[in-house]
Amino acid sequence: MKLKISITTILVLILGLNIYAQQALFGGQNIVSPEINSDNSVTFRFNAPNADTVKITGDFLPPEKIKTQWGIFDGPGKALLKKDANGIWSFTSQPLESDLYSYSFIVDGVTNTDPNNVYMIRDVASITDVFIVGGGKGDLYNVQDVPHGSVTRRWYDSPGNDMKRRVTIYTPPGYEESKDKYPVLYLLHGMGGDEEAWIALGRTSQILDNLIAQGKAEPMIVVMTNGNVAQKAAPGESPKGLYKPNMQLPHTMDGKFEETFTDVIKFVEKSYRVQANKEGRAIAGLSMGGYHSLHISRYHPNTFDYVGLFSAAIMPNDGVKSKVYENFDETLKAQMDNGYKLYWIGIGKTDFLYQTNTDYRAKLDGMGMKYTYVETEGGHVWTNWRIYLSEFVPLLFK
Amino acid sequence: MKLKISITTILVLILGLNIYAQQALFGGQNIVSPEINSDNSVTFRFNAPNADTVKITGDFLPPEKIKTQWGIFDGPGKALLKKDANGIWSFTSQPLESDLYSYSFIVDGVTNTDPNNVYMIRDVASITDVFIVGGGKGDLYNVQDVPHGSVTRRWYDSPGNDMKRRVTIYTPPGYEESKDKYPVLYLLHGMGGDEEAWIALGRTSQILDNLIAQGKAEPMIVVMTNGNVAQKAAPGESPKGLYKPNMQLPHTMDGKFEETFTDVIKFVEKSYRVQANKEGRAIAGLSMGGYHSLHISRYHPNTFDYVGLFSAAIMPNDGVKSKVYENFDETLKAQMDNGYKLYWIGIGKTDFLYQTNTDYRAKLDGMGMKYTYVETEGGHVWTNWRIYLSEFVPLLFK
Repeated sequence: MKLKISITTILVLILGLNIYAQQALFGGQNIVSPEINSDNSVTFRFNAPNADTVKITGDFLPPEKIKTQWGIFDGPGKALLKKDANGIWSFTSQPLESDLYSYSFIVDGVTNTDPNNVYMIRDVASITDVFIVGGGKGDLYNVQDVPHGSVTRRWYDSPGNDMKRRVTIYTPPGYEESKDKYPVLYLLHGMGGDEEAWIALGRTSQILDNLIAQGKAEPMIVVMTNGNVAQKAAPGESPKGLYKPNMQLPHTMDGKFEETFTDVIKFVEKSYRVQANKEGRAIAGLSMGGYHSLHISRYHPNTFDYVGLFSAAIMPNDGVKSKVYENFDETLKAQMDNGYKLYWIGIGKTDFLYQTNTDYRAKLDGMGMKYTYVETEGGHVWTNWRIYLSEFVPLLFK
Repeated sequence: MKLKISITTILVLILGLNIYAQQALFGGQNIVSPEINSDNSVTFRFNAPNADTVKITGDFLPPEKIKTQWGIFDGPGKALLKKDANGIWSFTSQPLESDLYSYSFIVDGVTNTDPNNVYMIRDVASITDVFIVGGGKGDLYNVQDVPHGSVTRRWYDSPGNDMKRRVTIYTPPGYEESKDKYPVLYLLHGMGGDEEAWIALGRTSQILDNLIAQGKAEPMIVVMTNGNVAQKAAPGESPKGLYKPNMQLPHTMDGKFEETFTDVIKFVEKSYRVQANKEGRAIAGLSMGGYHSLHISRYHPNTFDYVGLFSAAIMPNDGVKSKVYENFDETLKAQMDNGYKLYWIGIGKTDFLYQTNTDYRAKLDGMGMKYTYVETEGGHVWTNWRIYLSEFVPLLFK
């Protein structure tokens, strides 16, 4: 009987396997990257003794102006790392404003993830490493030592699309133990996104946990839908398997999602203890999700007391035929006449939809439809959408 | 008024941004990798026109024997890709057995993820790309067109550890609409794992959905705990922030998790409609989680009718002091005498814990304690743990 195998032996063996695996898969690196320094500068390290150049590209670096066939865009900047005697390349940024940032390395011209950073987020078809600098709004995006809500991925029936569809639902701390009815924010993603976008890149559960703990937001349920009605679920979460995602999907802006949105509401109001009335409903979204929020709240013009348009697209294409887009002015006027508590518009000064939003505000002004307007720096980026969510949520259900 | 901005313009602009982002971050690649061919061979592609060599390493390649200071291990093999005229490197594997596989590229000696594959899974401190070959057991790991359960991340109170702790809970299709009480499988991870391990690498929700749909498993709740009681939650999910995970954590095998496991049970039986009795409880785990399952089920010797030890560590270190490990033989005998329906042991022939498990079976034989034994090919790997889960679950709650 050799039952008393030493725990140390077991540890060494298991660690041995792990060290081996790391050596085999990740070049035996045992370095810290990224390291957030006390002054909020950030040091990045990459082990590549034989590389000729290692660069970093990310949204925390001064943007590069890149001219495409459609115009000039601000892109993430690049910086060169410096190699030490051990073959470890490193770069330390300027002190950074508090935020969540994304980056990648470029090793001899080939883009690479950071093997020392396990925190990655998918945005459409791209995966990038992320890090959070605290001390400001980034503190809202970090998990803090506060009560935490629950996050559930589940499936609901959408008869209007003849399919079961996946949805991500945040319930606030205390929901399960309570007997109260909670208000609901429907939170919609942009083009190429899905029911994982707001919870991952949007840091929705962290923002809600933190705002609720600070007493700045009412406890609420947040329903993060999938606005691509041709999809049952996010890439990898449906019977389509582990396919390569793409940006262009059919039926995203043709009225079908707006028309069938009542399927989502019915599911939520049947399945959760919610305030199933206009006072208890908010809808907001980014880009295409802002477009959806605009049209859903207008097409169902007495359904939501709170509407948020974050860097929203506004008008449908002339060629799109859907009853949802007929009678635009009449339904918008009906929404106005029915009354609401908040119609919130946020956009960045360099957003490519800035002019479109300016025109839409002029239209609202012309018809006397009240709204709250927030203009920020920057463009069509997640940095802004996290800010808009953080500013919008405290205004709800008061 | 220029409200009628063309949807095409918007699309082009948004796509432009995206294409730009991909170009900036991922070298403008627009290729498919991995591609699973009709004969279940798999083609991998990597765009690196200026690289001298591109290799692939993964667990689907013939293993390499690697000698470490602790002995010889089977490691993932390597293969060389071949460059075409466009600078795209590619490699096609042999037809592969149906399974979930992991891989990485090695570009001029530097390990890289696959920029064309967004499906990655973290295992402790490593992230690798994954793919699934169907047509066999891999079909259990893929999302199929069947009813889907819900997966919730939530927090429970553990007074025994003086903290709130995070847990992942699978509820089967129909749970929310039902009034039935459901049995519960407590499913425990190995060293370096956490409450994300079984749901990600273990494909638990897919396996359960599929086995239930096939009528092979009873609908059950699966509770995936965090067995590292020094941790509130998985890396990145606690107030510790986005730190670099490591394998070695305190208090993982010192009796504290076993002792305080009743906190988890109390929470589950208070919060869910469950069969709160021995007949309705199963516990199983891999490696360290098998060790935990053995000791929890013995220390609370009349609590579980079903126990699963998957590649389990068995005995504590001589130096560890905990009341949980006192009276081992007496409590094991008490567990036997109290009766149970299944004591299931699974291990691979080349697992480094094989001999330990052989010795433990001899001990059980010696005391007349009945068990079911399954011996597979292979070692201490997730391939086996998914198989063990798939074989164990149909035996429960019949």
